Amino acid sequence: MLLENDLMLRTLRGEATERTPVWMMRQAGRYLPEYRATRAEAGSFLDLCKNAELACEVTLQPLERYPLDAAILFSDILTIPDAMGLGLYFAEGEGPKFEHPVTTKADIDKLFVPDPTQELQYVVNAVSTIKKGLAGRMPLIGFSGSPWTLACYMVEGSGSKNFSRVKKMMYDTPQLMHQLLEVVTESVICYLQAQIDAGADIVQVFDTWGGNLTTQDYEDFSLAYTRRIASAIKQSHPQTPSILFTKGAGSWLSSMANAGYDGLGVDWTTDLSLARELTQDKVVLQGNLDPTALYANPETIRQKVRDVLKSYGKGHKHIFNLGHGILPDINPEHVAAFIDEVHVSSSEYHR
Amino acid sequence: MLLENDLMLRTLRGEATERTPVWMMRQAGRYLPEYRATRAEAGSFLDLCKNAELACEVTLQPLERYPLDAAILFSDILTIPDAMGLGLYFAEGEGPKFEHPVTTKADIDKLFVPDPTQELQYVVNAVSTIKKGLAGRMPLIGFSGSPWTLACYMVEGSGSKNFSRVKKMMYDTPQLMHQLLEVVTESVICYLQAQIDAGADIVQVFDTWGGNLTTQDYEDFSLAYTRRIASAIKQSHPQTPSILFTKGAGSWLSSMANAGYDGLGVDWTTDLSLARELTQDKVVLQGNLDPTALYANPETIRQKVRDVLKSYGKGHKHIFNLGHGILPDINPEHVAAFIDEVHVSSSEYHR
Repeated sequence: MLLENDLMLRTLRGEATERTPVWMMRQAGRYLPEYRATRAEAGSFLDLCKNAELACEVTLQPLERYPLDAAILFSDILTIPDAMGLGLYFAEGEGPKFEHPVTTKADIDKLFVPDPTQELQYVVNAVSTIKKGLAGRMPLIGFSGSPWTLACYMVEGSGSKNFSRVKKMMYDTPQLMHQLLEVVTESVICYLQAQIDAGADIVQVFDTWGGNLTTQDYEDFSLAYTRRIASAIKQSHPQTPSILFTKGAGSWLSSMANAGYDGLGVDWTTDLSLARELTQDKVVLQGNLDPTALYANPETIRQKVRDVLKSYGKGHKHIFNLGHGILPDINPEHVAAFIDEVHVSSSEYHR
Repeated sequence: MLLENDLMLRTLRGEATERTPVWMMRQAGRYLPEYRATRAEAGSFLDLCKNAELACEVTLQPLERYPLDAAILFSDILTIPDAMGLGLYFAEGEGPKFEHPVTTKADIDKLFVPDPTQELQYVVNAVSTIKKGLAGRMPLIGFSGSPWTLACYMVEGSGSKNFSRVKKMMYDTPQLMHQLLEVVTESVICYLQAQIDAGADIVQVFDTWGGNLTTQDYEDFSLAYTRRIASAIKQSHPQTPSILFTKGAGSWLSSMANAGYDGLGVDWTTDLSLARELTQDKVVLQGNLDPTALYANPETIRQKVRDVLKSYGKGHKHIFNLGHGILPDINPEHVAAFIDEVHVSSSEYHR
């Protein structure tokens, strides 16, 4: 099906475009009053993820407000470990937690690749429901957490400041860590393939915790596996572009540019001009307004948007985004100024 | 006074040395049972900082256990804002907090440069007591938080995940932010000068939160001020080497190398070989074992120490350290393996 707005797809294919496409990580989220209303109706956050109609509703909400160039599946990054039986739950005011973290070889031996038509059917349903709801207006981004990031949560049992358990496993028993990453990687591949089959036009891998590794460990325990995901998707779905976002990647962007992804997310601490130098236009760069810049007044926000555009410079291989997810207490009017400024100011960089 | 062990000073002066000096950020700390005993005797953490005899006792404790090459003043990074009247306190199980955060121009107008012989006399006393206790065995490192890092705590009133308040102030009212950073910078300069006068042989500036800025904001709101500190210290105390540690600095190390410091701390996410390339041997590099590597078994720890030495390579401008402070639940035996391995394996890189 042809899309009305295929700007982001054309960008990811490396075509010349008329302006810079824009979307926001967590664009369907708590900063929107209409999201909070639907969420209240649904019950818990997980109830919302598991209800295809309501997940579709919140996915479409930001598109009604802002001229965005993509929708992103509303879901959680921890659906895979939950489907493996770890028991995902959210304690009020805290991050995600697992009832049954994996700590021993016996725990890891028991893990299996969840069947996307069984344990993860609710995500696949959400994708096809959203795809229908979009009615060809713009592309739908599917996503997954990266193997390393999922493994961090699975071993720690929650978010963590120091990642002591998962690092101990990695350093002391690297073979066990690799065994865990193998089964998670296989699961991510099947999961993303099922999302594409259900209608996702683009897939993004979120490597939220890769930036906590040393350069060598990032290569061995994160990038080695995200590379396999890109390669599997390219083989099964050669038309579907893929994006890898490692928060805190910095200088690693140069090796990431050879990992088989069409685009790389860049956080706000790495200048896009440096990111471009490191990646040599081999990939599309996605980012990277400081999410806290949206606390500023609209005039300042517009200036900061222009700074990001200027930092990328002339060229077509840029997707505008925040450098991380939008924060829950941002004023929706400020988002409007940000998105509008990308529309107003980006075309001069495409001439 | 000549020091028995002046290896770290000779390294910071760029002299050829026989092996790599080693110390640890937070080396006097909770991982040591003898520290926990003294802390229990003192009362609160702040009581311990304010008691010169006990602060001296805990400073010397790790030196009894391990062949370290430097002592570091036992104190807190938030003494300056506390001396300005912000009311530092520690809620049990949480990080530092201020009773009176600065939020308005009126709050900032009221700030003053604390007199190190008055409000900060207890720190100066601790320095001279520790200096006496060391009896010339090895150098004493004095320290301060960086202006940006202190400003983050002062505006947020505590640690923060997103730094929404301080970023809003920086983006919306940059002049106000600069006014705050000016008075903090002046205070840091006087504070470090007083520590040197009382006996500190080296000073380190901890820029814990600089890594949350964009490249341009890091230059304007952090490095511009830490550069002034280095220059003031060089002018008043030309013989005293200084070290700047920005967590998450990554590619910024190249501009930091021209900021007037003799050494730069490097966290574990940036390979020392890259840090060396970025800084071109203009400065000494300090780091950068992953602090969580100390959770591993001693054999693995020794291998990781050798990896760090190899990553720096042949040369004399390296001080071994962790890439961040030691964690409170580390086994002291593991620390022994780490320190010993630096002694065993570093000399080959100095031939």
